[in-house]
Amino acid sequence: MSRCLISKPDVQGFIERCMVAVGTQPHHARSLAEVLVEGDHRGHYSHGLNRMDMYVKDVQSGICAKDGEPVVEKESAATALVEGKNLLGPVVGNFCMNLAIKKAKEVGIGWVVARGSNHYGIAGYYALQALKENMICTLGTNPISVAAPANDGDSFVLDMATSAVALGKVELYERRGDPIPEGWGCDANGKLSTDPKKVLSGGGLVPIGGSEATGGYKGYGLGMMVEVFCGILAGAQYSNHVRTWKVTDRIANLGQCFVAINPENFAPGFSDRMSDLLSIHRGMEPADPNVPVLTAGDPERMNMKRCDDMGGIPYHINVVNYMNDCAKNIGVSPLLPCDNLISN
Amino acid sequence: MSRCLISKPDVQGFIERCMVAVGTQPHHARSLAEVLVEGDHRGHYSHGLNRMDMYVKDVQSGICAKDGEPVVEKESAATALVEGKNLLGPVVGNFCMNLAIKKAKEVGIGWVVARGSNHYGIAGYYALQALKENMICTLGTNPISVAAPANDGDSFVLDMATSAVALGKVELYERRGDPIPEGWGCDANGKLSTDPKKVLSGGGLVPIGGSEATGGYKGYGLGMMVEVFCGILAGAQYSNHVRTWKVTDRIANLGQCFVAINPENFAPGFSDRMSDLLSIHRGMEPADPNVPVLTAGDPERMNMKRCDDMGGIPYHINVVNYMNDCAKNIGVSPLLPCDNLISN
Repeated sequence: MSRCLISKPDVQGFIERCMVAVGTQPHHARSLAEVLVEGDHRGHYSHGLNRMDMYVKDVQSGICAKDGEPVVEKESAATALVEGKNLLGPVVGNFCMNLAIKKAKEVGIGWVVARGSNHYGIAGYYALQALKENMICTLGTNPISVAAPANDGDSFVLDMATSAVALGKVELYERRGDPIPEGWGCDANGKLSTDPKKVLSGGGLVPIGGSEATGGYKGYGLGMMVEVFCGILAGAQYSNHVRTWKVTDRIANLGQCFVAINPENFAPGFSDRMSDLLSIHRGMEPADPNVPVLTAGDPERMNMKRCDDMGGIPYHINVVNYMNDCAKNIGVSPLLPCDNLISN
Repeated sequence: MSRCLISKPDVQGFIERCMVAVGTQPHHARSLAEVLVEGDHRGHYSHGLNRMDMYVKDVQSGICAKDGEPVVEKESAATALVEGKNLLGPVVGNFCMNLAIKKAKEVGIGWVVARGSNHYGIAGYYALQALKENMICTLGTNPISVAAPANDGDSFVLDMATSAVALGKVELYERRGDPIPEGWGCDANGKLSTDPKKVLSGGGLVPIGGSEATGGYKGYGLGMMVEVFCGILAGAQYSNHVRTWKVTDRIANLGQCFVAINPENFAPGFSDRMSDLLSIHRGMEPADPNVPVLTAGDPERMNMKRCDDMGGIPYHINVVNYMNDCAKNIGVSPLLPCDNLISN
């Protein structure tokens, strides 16, 4: 596999230029680019540069709004309902997260719910904003993300969908012609299936937990919990009313929920206890001596370190070529020529 | 199997008398009895009368405090840190939940964290208190429980541990001599095992999701999230510092977290959307035509209806006999003689 190494600022600038070329306000373009680059840097390529063309199309087609800013529709000392005005998801997300942090500084907690939003990249990005302020953060759309600060920059960062696995993993098995493990997906009749083709054609992913025997009803319940906190509480779309991303005949009107919690409002010594908790888990004897016990956020931390040591993010050459074609169509110069090819 | 039918008030009175006999304050005994009876009524016998002897012993041995009331240690308009004073879990739980509801009425949300608490029965009990006030509620200790009100008394009530299944289920398979499904537990080396004996002797339950391949790391992350909101935020015990219930050489100092959210602070029409969401799910075509699609709280609702139709809760005769022996030891007259035996 051929990959080329591109620095974070170069990817950031490229995405900003593409978004501005189709009419996005520069500061909105910057918000989106930051979320996508962070996704790639943390190793979640499915939510990074790879999706830029979707956002470009959303703005080009007018299915996402370009102008205006989110507004607060209803507010108390600790809560807010925000109308996202159909702007790009990261614009709405940053607005809500900042508001939640502000309220948490004042009364210990900020619970902000948005409607009229769009896809906002990795959920963890917003949780990480609260970490910078030494706040705990929890939020959902379909994913659940929770971040909590420990000492010396260490932290717990959970960012997970409530399905057993991502759809991309099923696609990968299908391409390889391999059966998927039991408990990933079901066929069109709702029966668990290990045939990736059946899952992708009329079937679907199953909630975390898999079958009823292995607690799949818990994942189902968690998925509905996220619906309650987002679409239902916000008065946005929910359940089967939510359109897929590829539909362009109506706006998304997604609901999102952002919660910041100030540990200073609770027992002193929060970050010491967080560090202890992380140490306890990381110090446990692993089942496989070659695979140390990790905590949520560790794999991403390791990926970021690898990138930083290399001096950039390694992208598959096909992704870069595809995005360069996309840029060309809207009159934007390509990403730096991929002269920094790496092979691993 | 022989079971006898006992009315809710009879069980309630019996538990109250036993607790008062060992020195519990009458209003604290009432709180505990209410939670335990609710557990049985909802069909969760593992968290009901079956556990009364544990609470009796806790008060008898002095490992739980009898006197005093919980106190607020730190407070803002939306948050509170409560010292549970080592009182019975339901006493602390009711205090915190009422405080969270009061704050949610005032500023839209109440986030209350307790330390110095003890085992408090089914988590769903507290979530249901918020429902009575038309509030959403979410909370955790080890379980996660979330309740949200819909129209006409209908609701969503999630109440789940973050392990794939309860330990009692593994014990049941061991007694029958059957292997357990893959993804329930592991052996002493941390490897997944289908041998219930290995899980029960030195092994343990695995988080929801099972193995790494089926998303077990998500359940692991959710379990840690609950630690953060409870033990860590409250400055109570957490992770491997938490003692098992059977240890009596030190107090439990459990941390618990109670959150009430007032839908009125967000988009109008919350309960209409909740009812629609529940209808969508219940109306889905089931994979097995004989097993309708349910939502969280439906199995418990069905169990309560069965009990109410029968005029009481059916208890296994062995449980009743065991508790009657326990009562005799502390000078309490037995549960009504089980003249209402049923066979199903």
